[in-house]
Amino acid sequence: MKVGIITSGGDAPGMNAAIRAVVRYAIPRGIETIGIERGWGGLLDNSIIPLTRKSVEGIIHLGGTILKTTRCQEFFTPRGYYKAMKVIKENKINALIVIGGDGSMWGSVQLNEVSGIPIIGIPATIDNDVAFTDETIGFDTAVNTCIEAIDKIRTTARSLERIFLIETMGRERGFLALQVGITAGVGVILVPEIKYNIEEVCERLRDFKQRGKRTSLIVAAEGIGDTSTIAENIEKITGFEIRISKLGYIQRGGAPTGRSRLLANLFGTYAVDLLLKGVYNEMVGIKDGKIISTDLKKVINTRKKLDMKLFTMAKELAV
Amino acid sequence: MKVGIITSGGDAPGMNAAIRAVVRYAIPRGIETIGIERGWGGLLDNSIIPLTRKSVEGIIHLGGTILKTTRCQEFFTPRGYYKAMKVIKENKINALIVIGGDGSMWGSVQLNEVSGIPIIGIPATIDNDVAFTDETIGFDTAVNTCIEAIDKIRTTARSLERIFLIETMGRERGFLALQVGITAGVGVILVPEIKYNIEEVCERLRDFKQRGKRTSLIVAAEGIGDTSTIAENIEKITGFEIRISKLGYIQRGGAPTGRSRLLANLFGTYAVDLLLKGVYNEMVGIKDGKIISTDLKKVINTRKKLDMKLFTMAKELAV
Amino acid sequence: MKVGIITSGGDAPGMNAAIRAVVRYAIPRGIETIGIERGWGGLLDNSIIPLTRKSVEGIIHLGGTILKTTRCQEFFTPRGYYKAMKVIKENKINALIVIGGDGSMWGSVQLNEVSGIPIIGIPATIDNDVAFTDETIGFDTAVNTCIEAIDKIRTTARSLERIFLIETMGRERGFLALQVGITAGVGVILVPEIKYNIEEVCERLRDFKQRGKRTSLIVAAEGIGDTSTIAENIEKITGFEIRISKLGYIQRGGAPTGRSRLLANLFGTYAVDLLLKGVYNEMVGIKDGKIISTDLKKVINTRKKLDMKLFTMAKELAV
Amino acid sequence: MKVGIITSGGDAPGMNAAIRAVVRYAIPRGIETIGIERGWGGLLDNSIIPLTRKSVEGIIHLGGTILKTTRCQEFFTPRGYYKAMKVIKENKINALIVIGGDGSMWGSVQLNEVSGIPIIGIPATIDNDVAFTDETIGFDTAVNTCIEAIDKIRTTARSLERIFLIETMGRERGFLALQVGITAGVGVILVPEIKYNIEEVCERLRDFKQRGKRTSLIVAAEGIGDTSTIAENIEKITGFEIRISKLGYIQRGGAPTGRSRLLANLFGTYAVDLLLKGVYNEMVGIKDGKIISTDLKKVINTRKKLDMKLFTMAKELAV
Repeated sequence: MKVGIITSGGDAPGMNAAIRAVVRYAIPRGIETIGIERGWGGLLDNSIIPLTRKSVEGIIHLGGTILKTTRCQEFFTPRGYYKAMKVIKENKINALIVIGGDGSMWGSVQLNEVSGIPIIGIPATIDNDVAFTDETIGFDTAVNTCIEAIDKIRTTARSLERIFLIETMGRERGFLALQVGITAGVGVILVPEIKYNIEEVCERLRDFKQRGKRTSLIVAAEGIGDTSTIAENIEKITGFEIRISKLGYIQRGGAPTGRSRLLANLFGTYAVDLLLKGVYNEMVGIKDGKIISTDLKKVINTRKKLDMKLFTMAKELAV
Repeated sequence: MKVGIITSGGDAPGMNAAIRAVVRYAIPRGIETIGIERGWGGLLDNSIIPLTRKSVEGIIHLGGTILKTTRCQEFFTPRGYYKAMKVIKENKINALIVIGGDGSMWGSVQLNEVSGIPIIGIPATIDNDVAFTDETIGFDTAVNTCIEAIDKIRTTARSLERIFLIETMGRERGFLALQVGITAGVGVILVPEIKYNIEEVCERLRDFKQRGKRTSLIVAAEGIGDTSTIAENIEKITGFEIRISKLGYIQRGGAPTGRSRLLANLFGTYAVDLLLKGVYNEMVGIKDGKIISTDLKKVINTRKKLDMKLFTMAKELAV
Repeated sequence: MKVGIITSGGDAPGMNAAIRAVVRYAIPRGIETIGIERGWGGLLDNSIIPLTRKSVEGIIHLGGTILKTTRCQEFFTPRGYYKAMKVIKENKINALIVIGGDGSMWGSVQLNEVSGIPIIGIPATIDNDVAFTDETIGFDTAVNTCIEAIDKIRTTARSLERIFLIETMGRERGFLALQVGITAGVGVILVPEIKYNIEEVCERLRDFKQRGKRTSLIVAAEGIGDTSTIAENIEKITGFEIRISKLGYIQRGGAPTGRSRLLANLFGTYAVDLLLKGVYNEMVGIKDGKIISTDLKKVINTRKKLDMKLFTMAKELAV
Repeated sequence: MKVGIITSGGDAPGMNAAIRAVVRYAIPRGIETIGIERGWGGLLDNSIIPLTRKSVEGIIHLGGTILKTTRCQEFFTPRGYYKAMKVIKENKINALIVIGGDGSMWGSVQLNEVSGIPIIGIPATIDNDVAFTDETIGFDTAVNTCIEAIDKIRTTARSLERIFLIETMGRERGFLALQVGITAGVGVILVPEIKYNIEEVCERLRDFKQRGKRTSLIVAAEGIGDTSTIAENIEKITGFEIRISKLGYIQRGGAPTGRSRLLANLFGTYAVDLLLKGVYNEMVGIKDGKIISTDLKKVINTRKKLDMKLFTMAKELAV
């Protein structure tokens, strides 16, 4: 069997650890592994490299992905799928392991439907917005990167006695913002899934002030709208000064945490086990501490839910 | 109700986050919270401070424990228990929340048996050696501290082309060494629970050499015996040079990771919920992603098992 | 003698170390030290706290300033100076030590001219834009914070094969951007002091591409203008995609580096020595490795020069 | 001209940045650069690789050395020098740039005397024990690694109320321990150059206790003798409990700080400039903020002095 490995979409810390796990677990089990570079783009370009046990040495602790990744429009067209099929056939690839987020799982389903190539998905994105897995590779790392950044901003916030609004990644979902908010001890967390009431936010900030809270922070996912406008509105209503800090691309980077690396090991080896058992078109995941797999179509058609209890807890513990 | 909070045994990152969670969740529910300083020692000395919502501000990200901790021999004597009972009575303490490791849970059972004071335990130790919880507060932080240290040592190991033996904490159990080993990509992991065969270890190192592995690392829990002797023996057999690095007390320190803080929040609030429901003498824990509680006696009489599959996986993925 | 300590303007890591050094060095030499909170604002409000050897314990490694800091408009008015004078007189303050950046030194000169109060300045700002000192407290820390952030972005830049424009602080001066650029190995550094030629920048980026450089980064000080517009212009000309990352407030935060702490110790003790010798209205500084002091008026009337050779070096070494 | 680059002795963070600076500055000036692997050892083995502008890409931020380094006994024998000469001749190497510590400078002088090969030294060692340079590449990084480790230990020290003795590297010299001590705010610093009086040390610790100092730390260079014995002696005299933490090999690792990278750039380019000017057998250095060079023999025959004023300052500011 010859398996192609793809990392697709935005990069996430731990993707390299997952590539390493797949390669090193697959080869002794008689599977040949190759890497497809630059996501779907490389599949169209026939940009393929061999992946041996040696070629994945010394990468477990590196952020990003040695296979690179791009967002590729052409892939999602009839011509794109056709090209991809041709490359798959020519290279005699028997199955694909696709490491990425929600969009990559969606692309996997499309490709499979058109080409019939068996695919196993491994969820890896800092956004943690993939259904049927409690956690994605890279999420824990991004949470820690954000709270370390907030710990830095905290000293300035305290020295200046200003409110800081910290913008995390998350165009559509607030998993990262929520996890960061509760673990950074932040009382106001704004996410795209929940309509916020600006009067309520202001009331909370006034309450913080009154109780003499030394640092008032707001954590907001980028998807809630233009944070500058929100900050201005709060300033107008409360008279408090607000500074904005967009954490930006550092959230994607850095060495993966132990947890992101462990997930990568568990997911990567399980993906190979599925292939060996002849199970196809599923996505690996972790559910209640157990490694499972779920039909890819079910994955892309299910919207993962935020844990609303964490909001209440974050709010309650912050004052 | 008046609840005393104790941190006992070795400190672990996230203890402060747990104290904060207990206090801030308990007070609005009508519970008065006080802190007992320096573990069991402070209980004997009547070293008690009030804990308000304000007094736990700005501590969620701090390592160590604001309540301090000591190991106290006197406590574990009839005179000790008697003193403790007196202090509990005089201060009109209705229940204790004890935050610590295995030894602290053991002490809690003793104290409860002698005095009848209701106790809820919260597992917090970098060793993760407490039964009936998949993870303890502080464990994830220690894992990350260790792998960051190993990432530093890696560059030197690669530059010098020497084998490095990294000694982690763990006098009796190897949870930390195992988790560090697998996530740092280390092929030889030595833990107290498993007798190692030195010839086998040497064989593995020779195999690494032959395959041209750039960095050969050994991770060993301190409990496996004197690492200097082990290194010397390996040197004698293989002729390879080995350098030792004992990670030491840095493993206890540092800001808690997101995961250690989240556990602290979940455990702390759940502990209060148990008290409110009149459930006593249980330890909070996380099992398959769910917060549970278990009878303290059962906890201290059960030996937690290492996940042996992780050993095999670490070994297999490392070459 | 009674000396008031003020931290003013933006906070910088190492300010606390400087406060500690002043207090602990001054007291055994017979000087009483008090802290004026929130910069010039606290001077107007009579917001004064005693500073003992004990009150500066455990702060050498903390970012921000325990004395807090604000920007205060009222101070720079006749009424402001008058109020300040009154507070100085009422508190029987004999001299001030002002820890801050260029603006704080300017304020010191104004206050001294109006009130006659002797002042010693200690340069502390992440911008390093104060004349007559090779380095300010906090600069080295900010440089390291920035290059650590860039090291994180690097993995994403490499995985995505995109150009990243990293925006550092520096509204008027480019010391930080230059130092970050050269030490992060960046070939294109844009600073407010030097007009850049967009065609030249594009040419450089094209050259990087041609040579197969794996990561093309641009470092730009915020003072060069709207970085989004600049990025768009480069995109239009070259057809390359550019991502922007504004490092923001994390640059002010974090534990001070060894070097920022050392400078704080050297500057703080020297400031006290000057007071003891009866030297007033000077700013402490480091010049060619030696601690010196310079007349405050001379300081504020001199524009510090960028080291142009570093630009050439950065450019040359980056390809 | 063909120049060989060697990294020798213990590795130091910033060596890679120095290699990069030499290569990228030399090539456009008509110098061919090659790398000699594994220090003097590689010179004996004819272990030589070409170094192009491309081969030093993406290494400025990596610890260790891509050229590797060993300690090689054979080199320092008549047979060793003879072998080295032969390799130099066969490879038509016109000059060597040797990056390393005191021992490497000593080896350079020996090799030059025997073979006549022109050599330029670049001081790179975490020990900072090389004369005629205020700072060596890697020193600033090691200082920061140590103080970050101490900041971690601090929380445990405070929680346990124990004295911690932190052992830094430095078998013969105390530059690192001194710099770490003063910047970590430590009151007791023990270095090999100064005989310590154990009674005095105990007196200081008792004084700390009496003043209620929350954390009593001792920093000791490994060269002062067996720290376990010293700790035991202090325990016997004072009755205080002492914990030991040997920082070990993490001190050599990690990404170089901005300052170590800057020095690497300045030293590397200056070394090439010397070769171009026909200046040989000198070591580059920084003195009072200026890049200078000094005769290698003078360097190895001069013992660099500790700045004793820093001791007094550290002691005074720590209480």
